[in-house]
Amino acid sequence: MLGLMQDQPLLVSALIEFAARHHADAQIVSRRVEGDLHRYTYAQAATRSRQVARALDRLGLAFSDRVGTLAWNGYRHFELYFGVSGSGRVVHTINPRLSPEQVVWIANHAEDQVLCFDMTFLPIIKAVWPQCKTVKHWIALCDADALPADTGIVGLRAYEEWIGDEPSDYDWPEFDEKSACALCYTSGTTGNPKGVLYSHRSTVLHAYGGALPDALNFSARDTILPVVPMFHVNAWGIPYGAAMTGMKIVFPGAALDGKSVYELMEAERVTVSAGVPTVWLMLLNHMKAQGLKFSTMQRTIIGGSACPPAMIKSFRDDFGVTVLHAWGMTEMSPLGTVCNLKLKHLASDKDAQLAVQLKQGRAVFGVEMKIVDAEGKDLPWDGVAAGDLLVKGPWIVSGYFKGEGGDPCIDGWFPTGDVATIDADGFMQITDRSKDVIKSGGEWISSIDIENIAMAHPAVAMAACIALPHPKWDERPLLVVMKKPGTEVTREALLAHFEGKVAKWQVPDDVVFVDAIPLGATGKMQKNKLREQFKGHKLPG
Amino acid sequence: MLGLMQDQPLLVSALIEFAARHHADAQIVSRRVEGDLHRYTYAQAATRSRQVARALDRLGLAFSDRVGTLAWNGYRHFELYFGVSGSGRVVHTINPRLSPEQVVWIANHAEDQVLCFDMTFLPIIKAVWPQCKTVKHWIALCDADALPADTGIVGLRAYEEWIGDEPSDYDWPEFDEKSACALCYTSGTTGNPKGVLYSHRSTVLHAYGGALPDALNFSARDTILPVVPMFHVNAWGIPYGAAMTGMKIVFPGAALDGKSVYELMEAERVTVSAGVPTVWLMLLNHMKAQGLKFSTMQRTIIGGSACPPAMIKSFRDDFGVTVLHAWGMTEMSPLGTVCNLKLKHLASDKDAQLAVQLKQGRAVFGVEMKIVDAEGKDLPWDGVAAGDLLVKGPWIVSGYFKGEGGDPCIDGWFPTGDVATIDADGFMQITDRSKDVIKSGGEWISSIDIENIAMAHPAVAMAACIALPHPKWDERPLLVVMKKPGTEVTREALLAHFEGKVAKWQVPDDVVFVDAIPLGATGKMQKNKLREQFKGHKLPG
Repeated sequence: MLGLMQDQPLLVSALIEFAARHHADAQIVSRRVEGDLHRYTYAQAATRSRQVARALDRLGLAFSDRVGTLAWNGYRHFELYFGVSGSGRVVHTINPRLSPEQVVWIANHAEDQVLCFDMTFLPIIKAVWPQCKTVKHWIALCDADALPADTGIVGLRAYEEWIGDEPSDYDWPEFDEKSACALCYTSGTTGNPKGVLYSHRSTVLHAYGGALPDALNFSARDTILPVVPMFHVNAWGIPYGAAMTGMKIVFPGAALDGKSVYELMEAERVTVSAGVPTVWLMLLNHMKAQGLKFSTMQRTIIGGSACPPAMIKSFRDDFGVTVLHAWGMTEMSPLGTVCNLKLKHLASDKDAQLAVQLKQGRAVFGVEMKIVDAEGKDLPWDGVAAGDLLVKGPWIVSGYFKGEGGDPCIDGWFPTGDVATIDADGFMQITDRSKDVIKSGGEWISSIDIENIAMAHPAVAMAACIALPHPKWDERPLLVVMKKPGTEVTREALLAHFEGKVAKWQVPDDVVFVDAIPLGATGKMQKNKLREQFKGHKLPG
Repeated sequence: MLGLMQDQPLLVSALIEFAARHHADAQIVSRRVEGDLHRYTYAQAATRSRQVARALDRLGLAFSDRVGTLAWNGYRHFELYFGVSGSGRVVHTINPRLSPEQVVWIANHAEDQVLCFDMTFLPIIKAVWPQCKTVKHWIALCDADALPADTGIVGLRAYEEWIGDEPSDYDWPEFDEKSACALCYTSGTTGNPKGVLYSHRSTVLHAYGGALPDALNFSARDTILPVVPMFHVNAWGIPYGAAMTGMKIVFPGAALDGKSVYELMEAERVTVSAGVPTVWLMLLNHMKAQGLKFSTMQRTIIGGSACPPAMIKSFRDDFGVTVLHAWGMTEMSPLGTVCNLKLKHLASDKDAQLAVQLKQGRAVFGVEMKIVDAEGKDLPWDGVAAGDLLVKGPWIVSGYFKGEGGDPCIDGWFPTGDVATIDADGFMQITDRSKDVIKSGGEWISSIDIENIAMAHPAVAMAACIALPHPKWDERPLLVVMKKPGTEVTREALLAHFEGKVAKWQVPDDVVFVDAIPLGATGKMQKNKLREQFKGHKLPG
């Protein structure tokens, strides 16, 4: 017997209309590519989202047609999220840090019909447009008069001219909530990038789960600055969660250096932010160098990579900001866990709380987790047993776009590729990537532990621990270190720094210093490049 | 094109299993009918919910069969919520404050197969059991040895004996998320009670929406004492929201007097509570009389009736507790709106904030609202125009059990029967019930406004404003007042108290004093009884 409740689908269009009705005057502030600040309201964002929907109708785009974006975090990108998905099309965010060849490959694979781009990326578009076979319309996210006449790009229009004359009302269509709404490619370690296709249902459920007090805790009293890019897993769902709650948004655009981010946070009274550790490193370094403090910042969500303990401590002790460790993946919309303390931790001292906060956190309701051994058998949640982490839930991938790679799941569980422990309180901690783990003499060494210890040294700006082959122990750890400007430290001093912090056999065999550690398009350290670079390195002893 | 996300239904069983895995040791404390405190964990609650599911399987109950409950807020009732619904049956909560005849009518209409009851209600069950034609199994919520041998009730068993020997594991079935999970009857103003049939989908979505920071703001750092009964609209969804977030629960059982509630709040370090104004009146009166303060309470959710401004002020100024005004209905699962301030209100002074907090609040995402005039035309959201309030959303009723009363909706919108304004910020304020409104000389007088002003007088314990027919003005207001014990006030003094607070023509024509104002089964004032009682009352002048 079915319940007798209204049969209303969960649709992305409802989010922007809800914001327009309940938070008409709440602000959305964007630092534009031009450098100036743009300021408007959710009511205006909703109006322009409807204009986008109408402009797409006018182009004759069919239901589920893909609209690509190559853009920073800003108000026009925000409008595309709702206008494209709300009208039944699929917003396909492309990472502009990819190579031009990868951009072409992805746009062709997705069969994008329209591609909208920030003017920053005009040079890329100029280079690649003839190879993007399905794109019929190129939309530059700018005013009509900002568009050069001589680009040579066929089908190029300025966004403001494209939507400008459309009426401001629109009847959002109602359809199956399982329909696709957004597409994001993830670059695997092997083969071509694979597309993750989110549905309206998964996106709205993820927005509910992500906004919960024990997840990202979004309310109409917050002001959020999403550093995490909208071209990467929908900025962790923040645009949807923001519309659901009506919080003020401050989009940083392309200026992610410490000074720009700090000044924007202060000027716009930001209370919460979200991003990867590398961005926070720039921010904290700038603030320390200049002796700056925050006036309004309360918390920052750190994901993408494990946050070094020293950074969590510095945020807390030097700047009064709580770090919320979060973990997820493109295949998970992306939220899996967030590290919020429980009632029983509130009475603990700061060190005990920090020990909890170092973990990636508890699952958001909607995500089920398990850890298994090499035979696929469940491991206990004791905070000790480490195994492959698998997840399940309504905002987790069931397959990739066009069936690439086949069914990624094992009995309905998606294997994350991470190795983790889970403690009795449900706090998960990543100990390694399956492929990153260092196997020495039959025992595992966590490269993350080694990196965190190295990062706690005052002279270390960034550290990567990689495995090198070893005739006796199978593999042994090598530590690759980027020093902070103006500091010095020796190989011996760094190795001595590990004494007493890990077992002797876990101390790296060697340290090498580099000018820079290569970062991927989403800010993660590219260890595969380091492994390639140091594959001939001879370990001492 | 559909998205490629896992097809996982939203089911109530997932809530209790999530709590068991992530909050195994979080506490659930219950004041039992016996008077003592019972204390256990979510892990134990989940185990016993599974035992309930197994016991129902053993009885041979079919999918969607109804299991009635007649019980206070306590751990066994909590287990029934999950064991009954999780295993695919429908938990049918019956209000024990109804007359025995109504209980019989409802149990027969619902075709309850099993009826579980607290020992408090054994006298009712003894009186009615032969008339409940479909109930085959009577389960007393007690230990085996607490069950009298001579009840004469055929099919009577003690709960602990019933579930005690069942294994602690259970494979919760997976089924369509739109399947029915809970049933609650609402007594309309005319005709028989009507059953609202919640689905798993509506219940889980409502739990997400209700736990949001701008709704009830539930986290694992909270301790909640739900005064609002589990027999009434699932205690506003708190049991589900608590399992979703792992917060500590303190169930007050039958002891809802001020002293009992206060002592339990203090002993268990409660941070949040929820209930109707009448209960808070008892609590505040007790605390004021004894000169008591709260140690841990932060906020209380008040719904069911509009909260008098004097009470909101007293909570805030005398006890440091924030009142969250909420509004909903049985037909809405029940949450429609919650009154949380926005960013722009934070800089306002206390009086300006109070003016916002008097409203019923903003819609929870998932609920759409509109106000219409007598012709059904949309009225503006300007905080002035008052009209019939209609709602729409995935946790709002589409029809009543067995089709009673036909389709309640108008073009998919459910008419709430409330008259309201909505301001430009989306804050809704109930001005009256459609049937309560007083129409004097073509103008409306808000009985709620009149009651709130009366309640602010130090000698008034409770006040009801009703319309009496009037030859010239059509209707005129009569104020019915229950005085606080040990206080005195005259008719003239009370009428003078209205001067300057409302327009002259809105001041009641007369005041009558009564020993008690009749309250309905859910604690609301029964104005229809007062109208009957005073229908012959002659207004002066």
